[in-house]
Amino acid sequence: MADEAKAVVLLSGGLDSTVAMASARHEGYACYALTIDYGQRHRVELEAAARVAGALEAVEHKILPIDLRAFGGSALTSDAPVPKDRPAEDIAEGIPVTYVPARNTVFLSLALAWAEVVGAFDLWIGVNALDYSGYPDCRPAFVESFERLANLATKAGVEGQGEFRVHTPLLRFRKSEIILYGRNLRVDFSLTHSCYDPDAEAVACGRCDACQLRLKGFREAGITDPVRYRQS
Amino acid sequence: MADEAKAVVLLSGGLDSTVAMASARHEGYACYALTIDYGQRHRVELEAAARVAGALEAVEHKILPIDLRAFGGSALTSDAPVPKDRPAEDIAEGIPVTYVPARNTVFLSLALAWAEVVGAFDLWIGVNALDYSGYPDCRPAFVESFERLANLATKAGVEGQGEFRVHTPLLRFRKSEIILYGRNLRVDFSLTHSCYDPDAEAVACGRCDACQLRLKGFREAGITDPVRYRQS
Repeated sequence: MADEAKAVVLLSGGLDSTVAMASARHEGYACYALTIDYGQRHRVELEAAARVAGALEAVEHKILPIDLRAFGGSALTSDAPVPKDRPAEDIAEGIPVTYVPARNTVFLSLALAWAEVVGAFDLWIGVNALDYSGYPDCRPAFVESFERLANLATKAGVEGQGEFRVHTPLLRFRKSEIILYGRNLRVDFSLTHSCYDPDAEAVACGRCDACQLRLKGFREAGITDPVRYRQS
Repeated sequence: MADEAKAVVLLSGGLDSTVAMASARHEGYACYALTIDYGQRHRVELEAAARVAGALEAVEHKILPIDLRAFGGSALTSDAPVPKDRPAEDIAEGIPVTYVPARNTVFLSLALAWAEVVGAFDLWIGVNALDYSGYPDCRPAFVESFERLANLATKAGVEGQGEFRVHTPLLRFRKSEIILYGRNLRVDFSLTHSCYDPDAEAVACGRCDACQLRLKGFREAGITDPVRYRQS
């Protein structure tokens, strides 16, 4: 364990970040899992993150509160209704109301801060440019730009102790490919949570964009999704 | 007021950010002042920020808590002693223990998030490459890199509603020049706070790096610093 390279992994508790962390573990990284509690309405994500961090043997798991609701601007951080039953072509196009302004920039910045403290140069994030084509901060150009910034922004980067790298193992995968990749990495999908609008018992709605993308992915992968969905 | 361009200004309540905000006001921006409560030990900064935001007529002033102490790694966010009475040449060289990992990256990311929500494309930050030559995230290359990132990271940047710009009016000023510039802008320096180690009544120590740089700046500018210092 002492000789493993360290990585900071952004772990939301959703499917993608869980597979990303499994990928980091598979590549031999000692993982510092970072979960941002940004006031998201789907709070059960945080419990999912803790389960996943345990199952994937994080060296340390931090849940950092930062209330992005203070800024507003997203259905994910307000009481505005989450869209339901949108057709697949609508989900794939444009920037949805669930976009959280500058979210991945903020999250990667925080991962960078922790990385510098623990002596890690590898940041892992489960962004995906295909199913979420509408999110500007999930595109390769964004990720590359952040890498350049990280090496200019930090003492560790400037002093040449190493070079920061942002790992995005899922960047060019379809959701079904993420699921198949996760299965190969022996990910326990029942630990994860994706729904934007779960009920009090954390049961998924099955109708928000996140549920629809997830269900479609499992269908296309030919695998049964082990999480519970509400009957409607 | 309705026709003024909007700006998000990072306002710590210190001398530099105060002069930066005065500069933004002077250039006609309607200012959204953002103060990050990152668990800094010099808490009276937050009160100074509120005074300055009021005096400079911020449209809105937000104090956003984010506990960077969770990561550690800096004398400013821990109980480690703040260095005192360091010679000027030591202050000017190297990266001090008061460096907070990735701080300006995190702060600018948060400013960007708020800017996107209020429809601002101008971020103002009082960084300075001369007196703080040791901080990697105060250098022009860092600022330019963040500007590029901002335009890739956001819905507003990608959809071409405008171009994000990071304004750094103090970047190439010496502390004495910042003070003279602030005087021309009619800044009330008595509202500001710089000391890393104030006493219970917010009286500055006069011996930490921040106090020494400030006092030297006022001396060189030929102006009396109106804030109170402890006798020692």
